[in-house]
Amino acid sequence: MIKKLTLITCAAALATFPLAAQDAKPVFPSPPEIVAKAKAEEWTAIAPSDLLVMDLAPDAKGKARRVVIQLIPPPFSQGWVGNIRKLAAAKWWDGTSINRVQDNYVVQWGDATEKKVLPEGLVTVSEAAYASSLFEWQNENAKRDKERQDKQASEVSTPPIVKKVELEPYPAWHSRDPFASWVDFYRGWPIATAGYSWEQIWWPTHCYGMVGVGRNLSPDTGTGAELYAVIGHAPRHLDRNIALVGRVIEGLEHLSSLPRGTGPLGFYEKEEERVQINSARLGDEIADLPAFEYLSTDSASFAAYADARANRRDPFFITPAGGADICNIPVPVRRKAK
Amino acid sequence: MIKKLTLITCAAALATFPLAAQDAKPVFPSPPEIVAKAKAEEWTAIAPSDLLVMDLAPDAKGKARRVVIQLIPPPFSQGWVGNIRKLAAAKWWDGTSINRVQDNYVVQWGDATEKKVLPEGLVTVSEAAYASSLFEWQNENAKRDKERQDKQASEVSTPPIVKKVELEPYPAWHSRDPFASWVDFYRGWPIATAGYSWEQIWWPTHCYGMVGVGRNLSPDTGTGAELYAVIGHAPRHLDRNIALVGRVIEGLEHLSSLPRGTGPLGFYEKEEERVQINSARLGDEIADLPAFEYLSTDSASFAAYADARANRRDPFFITPAGGADICNIPVPVRRKAK
Repeated sequence: MIKKLTLITCAAALATFPLAAQDAKPVFPSPPEIVAKAKAEEWTAIAPSDLLVMDLAPDAKGKARRVVIQLIPPPFSQGWVGNIRKLAAAKWWDGTSINRVQDNYVVQWGDATEKKVLPEGLVTVSEAAYASSLFEWQNENAKRDKERQDKQASEVSTPPIVKKVELEPYPAWHSRDPFASWVDFYRGWPIATAGYSWEQIWWPTHCYGMVGVGRNLSPDTGTGAELYAVIGHAPRHLDRNIALVGRVIEGLEHLSSLPRGTGPLGFYEKEEERVQINSARLGDEIADLPAFEYLSTDSASFAAYADARANRRDPFFITPAGGADICNIPVPVRRKAK
Repeated sequence: MIKKLTLITCAAALATFPLAAQDAKPVFPSPPEIVAKAKAEEWTAIAPSDLLVMDLAPDAKGKARRVVIQLIPPPFSQGWVGNIRKLAAAKWWDGTSINRVQDNYVVQWGDATEKKVLPEGLVTVSEAAYASSLFEWQNENAKRDKERQDKQASEVSTPPIVKKVELEPYPAWHSRDPFASWVDFYRGWPIATAGYSWEQIWWPTHCYGMVGVGRNLSPDTGTGAELYAVIGHAPRHLDRNIALVGRVIEGLEHLSSLPRGTGPLGFYEKEEERVQINSARLGDEIADLPAFEYLSTDSASFAAYADARANRRDPFFITPAGGADICNIPVPVRRKAK
């Protein structure tokens, strides 16, 4: 919403963190600038075998539409993730379609006929698996505490400042989530808990771009054959009520810009409205797939990035919020430079 | 993400709040069912003069694309709203265009050339006007307290229940906002404050569909000629940094489903990508405009609806969240029945 020319000028200037000579105000890097300055070792490679690559039929102009989904790592949702690997291996989604696009909610895909036979060997997962214990959390937390201290002296968090800005050791936003008692990041993923200690049960959160498993009424938990991606304000009321199995890391716009369905819940009413899925494969079966990496959520740069998202001090802003919700701190993911 | 056939069956059954005979579990109405049962007097009419009706060029199939925006009422942003009325009266947007579509963020429109002369008489608004005092709030709150008590006995909040569900008099979500100390609704709009008493300064929140005013770097606050609508997860870090002047109440899908721009910040790079705005007029200048109304946010039905959004107990859900963020409780707006 900033006007075009001014912003571009401003962004170019900021890339070098200039100190405005006339008033000696501190100039803070923006969140993208912090990410751009993160060290190579702060990025974590995503294994191609943890990607689901979905090629839709080309658009009206013949342009390819590829959607790349990162599958969620252990300990979350691994029963459904295992099913998804089997469905991809069986080429089950080939020839199925996008069947539902509901504005400010989800895009959903799978077999519109609901009659396609599933491959053998899929497991039925329990509702208890909507959340998971994090045994390793306590160690990760100790490590992060140290890194948070270290970053006080690091290049990333100390652009040329005149006045020191106090940051809370644990920003208030962690404990001010309306849907949970605490929110955080774990191995690159946004998570939440209803308890107050590190040993609690945690679950992934329904942020923009997250991918989940369609299901019928409880106790059904879905197989993973019917999937959806979030394309609106985070529907966090679905947390713990439905399995999250991944997130779209590239090509989400091919889903979010589709025409909205006019039937109930945004289902398409006519067959010709449905976009065909030409193929869906695990990443290690795709020859030309670029490598992807995410900014490690236990890195100093991620902590600085999250702080900057919660306290915008770059020049456009006049009043930092002092907090952010977990879905307003999207984990940076990018193609790895060759 | 629920499977199509099951949900439709289920929704049809729920419309009569049946009590399942076999296990006598309580059956709770869903948020849309609560809204559908609200009394006629709980709805507030929206004056046509408070609407900005924007007709885009028809889509590729020749289908009309009308976007209806409700302008925000006093005490919020009235300097910019006044400018918008003048711009509409001057037909200033006619022939301008949608220039930017950034995924999970905003759609922005206005004069792509940035050279079109503005009408005379526009005011320059101060940054102080990003938030406002609510003198009447205290009375409204007392009224709501009474209504909250009344609703215990009302038809809307008491579907046939077997076990009483305890609701907090003030649900925790009001005070668990990561961007503010308190969030609430006022005259149909989501608002937030940084203080802890009713006399504080409040501001509207950047929820999905909200419309704001593009600006250059501070101290510029924008005129209202350059507008944007939120089409992603609520960018609440913009609250108090930019003026909110309304919300899209119909036709948002004509903006949110546009192709994403490929330039920086989602700006379209080629002129032919831009969708033209054929006209933008205040609602009282449109002959065939339907009447709109919103569910009064100080009504008992709205309180029950907000509680249900924060504590989903309808049959699909197994774990109610116990809270919701302010943007996850969208204010119901509909065409008024003739």
